[in-house]
Amino acid sequence: MRLVTNTITLATNRERQLVDVTQQAQQLVRQSGVQNGVCSLYAHGATAALMIQENDDPNIGEDVVNCLDQLVPKGVWLHDRIDGNGASHIQAGIVGPSETIPIREGKLDLSTWQNVFFCEFDGPRARRTIAVTILGD
Amino acid sequence: MRLVTNTITLATNRERQLVDVTQQAQQLVRQSGVQNGVCSLYAHGATAALMIQENDDPNIGEDVVNCLDQLVPKGVWLHDRIDGNGASHIQAGIVGPSETIPIREGKLDLSTWQNVFFCEFDGPRARRTIAVTILGD
Amino acid sequence: MRLVTNTITLATNRERQLVDVTQQAQQLVRQSGVQNGVCSLYAHGATAALMIQENDDPNIGEDVVNCLDQLVPKGVWLHDRIDGNGASHIQAGIVGPSETIPIREGKLDLSTWQNVFFCEFDGPRARRTIAVTILGD
Repeated sequence: MRLVTNTITLATNRERQLVDVTQQAQQLVRQSGVQNGVCSLYAHGATAALMIQENDDPNIGEDVVNCLDQLVPKGVWLHDRIDGNGASHIQAGIVGPSETIPIREGKLDLSTWQNVFFCEFDGPRARRTIAVTILGD
Repeated sequence: MRLVTNTITLATNRERQLVDVTQQAQQLVRQSGVQNGVCSLYAHGATAALMIQENDDPNIGEDVVNCLDQLVPKGVWLHDRIDGNGASHIQAGIVGPSETIPIREGKLDLSTWQNVFFCEFDGPRARRTIAVTILGD
Repeated sequence: MRLVTNTITLATNRERQLVDVTQQAQQLVRQSGVQNGVCSLYAHGATAALMIQENDDPNIGEDVVNCLDQLVPKGVWLHDRIDGNGASHIQAGIVGPSETIPIREGKLDLSTWQNVFFCEFDGPRARRTIAVTILGD
């Protein structure tokens, strides 16, 4: 069993957006040499998350952010008295920072339309990080 | 440390439903011979997800689907201009495709009322798949 | 590769609350001696879940519970005819019971403001459990 750890670093340029990190994750899996196993991804930051989402239509990222804004609106939370980003924290918590993706034949075993997205809920930020842990043979 | 990979295949027969896949997952864990570790499950398809949910009352699946339909209604998303299933993608993204379940004494360590459900948000589909990765001793 | 399994036990004292379990999880990671790998946490109970959330402002837990109560209100589900806790099950399913957190340099690799919270959606309960599985070198 092999264990390989790494970090994906990215910048975000909007207050709220989904950023596709599939290519970076696939490259780390390839470099690891692991053929079968899992790739565990974890987004740092209590206003960030990871989401597996449709990869073909860039509008879907906007749809996700708009939907979460309707479900968890800004400015109505107890935490907003301290810091203006209560909604960002709640959204990040519901979506969640961790995804564990299978590795098969040396690649992330995503289906055709699935990609991995970093969810920025309180940007823009010059530096966001995702911990990558690859376990397998 | 042992690594065993497999796939659960299923058909769905409604547009939106939860399908219990606990028995198939338990069988793969048993066959693996792993006594302690984790079973990582991953649903393929950008309109599908996995959910751990109550296993005794079949109505709960209907409740989950109805709740998600109220929270993320059909037909109001940018993506719907391309493809009619924006709501399905958003719901799948929020619920998420991956669950990592402990294995103890050779079995999935679910509590009494927890089962594993495949969430179909854009069916019916003749063939859906869940990647299964078992890691442990 | 080392595999260490353990259990975090806790009591909840309110019907609905978030309970910080980061210290217990960090201690189990330290005791395991694992320097790099993952810590997979899994909440037992079909009305419970795990959430990574902001750790500095105790109000955020209340915000999360209030938000989920607005999104998934009590008393309007099919399951409520059998048992009064349909909303608790749906909320638990959406938040989800599993989180996989990286281990780096012998510690859970959480960011500054991220802690691990047990979500009680149908308490109080004298005994709730979280299965802990540590995999790594």
